[in-house]
Amino acid sequence: MIAIDAMGGDYAPHAMVLGSLPAARSGIALQLYGNQELLEKLLNEADESWRSLPITVVDCSEVINMGEEPTRAVRKKDSSLYQAVYAVSRGVAQAVVTAGNSGSALVTSMLVLETIPGITRPAIGTLLPTQTGGTVFCLDLGANVDAKAVFLEQFAYMGHAYVQAMRGIEHPRIALLSNGEEQYKGPANVRQAYELLNNSTLNFIGNIEPNNIFNGHTDVVVSDGFAGNIMLKTIEGTVAALMDWLKRAFNTNLFTKFIGLLCKPIFKKIKKQCDYAQQGGALLLGVKHPVIIAHGCSDARAFEHAVRYAHAVVQKKVIQRFNERFAVAIATRPVPSESQVHSAS
Amino acid sequence: MIAIDAMGGDYAPHAMVLGSLPAARSGIALQLYGNQELLEKLLNEADESWRSLPITVVDCSEVINMGEEPTRAVRKKDSSLYQAVYAVSRGVAQAVVTAGNSGSALVTSMLVLETIPGITRPAIGTLLPTQTGGTVFCLDLGANVDAKAVFLEQFAYMGHAYVQAMRGIEHPRIALLSNGEEQYKGPANVRQAYELLNNSTLNFIGNIEPNNIFNGHTDVVVSDGFAGNIMLKTIEGTVAALMDWLKRAFNTNLFTKFIGLLCKPIFKKIKKQCDYAQQGGALLLGVKHPVIIAHGCSDARAFEHAVRYAHAVVQKKVIQRFNERFAVAIATRPVPSESQVHSAS
Repeated sequence: MIAIDAMGGDYAPHAMVLGSLPAARSGIALQLYGNQELLEKLLNEADESWRSLPITVVDCSEVINMGEEPTRAVRKKDSSLYQAVYAVSRGVAQAVVTAGNSGSALVTSMLVLETIPGITRPAIGTLLPTQTGGTVFCLDLGANVDAKAVFLEQFAYMGHAYVQAMRGIEHPRIALLSNGEEQYKGPANVRQAYELLNNSTLNFIGNIEPNNIFNGHTDVVVSDGFAGNIMLKTIEGTVAALMDWLKRAFNTNLFTKFIGLLCKPIFKKIKKQCDYAQQGGALLLGVKHPVIIAHGCSDARAFEHAVRYAHAVVQKKVIQRFNERFAVAIATRPVPSESQVHSAS
Repeated sequence: MIAIDAMGGDYAPHAMVLGSLPAARSGIALQLYGNQELLEKLLNEADESWRSLPITVVDCSEVINMGEEPTRAVRKKDSSLYQAVYAVSRGVAQAVVTAGNSGSALVTSMLVLETIPGITRPAIGTLLPTQTGGTVFCLDLGANVDAKAVFLEQFAYMGHAYVQAMRGIEHPRIALLSNGEEQYKGPANVRQAYELLNNSTLNFIGNIEPNNIFNGHTDVVVSDGFAGNIMLKTIEGTVAALMDWLKRAFNTNLFTKFIGLLCKPIFKKIKKQCDYAQQGGALLLGVKHPVIIAHGCSDARAFEHAVRYAHAVVQKKVIQRFNERFAVAIATRPVPSESQVHSAS
């Protein structure tokens, strides 16, 4: 059973309802949390026979408003987000999917699902494709905009455990996102994290600049949530702009239009390669149960992918496998000295 | 006369010498600062008749080592960087070009050229193309990795003045780079800067996410040097990765290879559009004289573009025009209250 926060996201609840239906049709059991009257109306409009599908609607009376701060939002215990997360903590559902504010998802998950031992702050992570045909796991992508050095170190251990568990690499290469390769580059938290990682039990290969993230030289890229989110959204914007420029260039005259037509399947392939909406969502790592963060701007198709991804995460026991690996890895972490704790806190 | 830091950059001094020669051949007068023996040897190897060109070599005895911290580097008063900047302050040259560490360039320029009234920290800015056929001016792109809110406010006034002076837009739209559009998004300095800008005399349109920077909705994007640098280098990496994936896709079979051949001029056009190395460098705004920051990884071609760009900056009196506009704009800035100065410092 997957719990759906049906009221979170730029296109909620329509996109969430329309994205949930095809997933349910393929046999994935879903609980939709939100305004029952509204959700059932939308379900009826979209598919008269939806009641024969494995979908249940759970009414929630409170609404998190657009632009509401996470610390306020989390107090609404009868919101669709809170109730969907709560369902996972009670064992009613095995994973939760939300396209709502990722800050609210973070705070609610920490409160309701609890963090795993060794983790102060959970992080959002996702795999990006590399030019060498592999993948690179990037975290944090937006959960913690102000991350202390010790949090970055925790993210590195999480990246290590994830790549171990999911890609079977025993000693994943870990890199720290910065504005230069030199140890002294970056803001204070990044410089302090460099030192912590250099003294860690991880296979730390130093700083990486974002122009090199696709080159396959690292398995994990660690960043605070602000820099990571800037990176992820810049990739998105650049891919869209390039595709748009190409389209215009091909639209110049009849001949280029004809070439463009021939190129279509090739562009489709590339777009699919870059479009992380295909994967549907990112994982919130560091809490006890699976939380899938879908894009805030998810449309029905993207949200459907997120739901299918959540189902796969449950089927493949991703979070259990990750949590087991993480427990082993973090146990090897050297105990920081008093001065390190002080300077890096 | 343009002063060249011939010893700074990943491919120094070779790339700097080879990039300077074609610029000098087209009549741009250059002073090359660095190890005289080495530079003259490289010049002789590249062009036996270089002494007939408007090139002079100025010997500098000190070398800034790879990975040397800016605060240490700046103490070397007979380094190529320091002497080249010093030449501008004495009026011997009208602009300086360096591909060395941008942190060192910042600190040296502040020390030797002085900041303009109203500016605590200079910023690196450059124009990026938009999908609507216009440009967007982005700053800071790497000079200040830890920028306080009041610095971000100063950057906004600089962006405003630059777009006024160079693009003739009287009320440029100013946006703040963040991980969400809501006012509460982003780390503390960004949130405080939002408030300062909201109360400023500028045409502040709120936060912008980097997936929207190419859409033409803003004229200026303000960020701290870390986030700005992450954004710029992510664009670079994404363009390179996409071009590489396209190349591979076209290499699949004879038919796709043939289509690829037809596409070549189109890709060339797009690449040129995205390649900010074509422009050659970014401006360090906020100091009294022109400083051009070339890419650290500049090859000869990129460095030549940077030298030509410096020449254009001098010819078009870019910095004078910018400084005049800035003086007018900053005079309209509301005096922050005591509490704002305290909270945003």
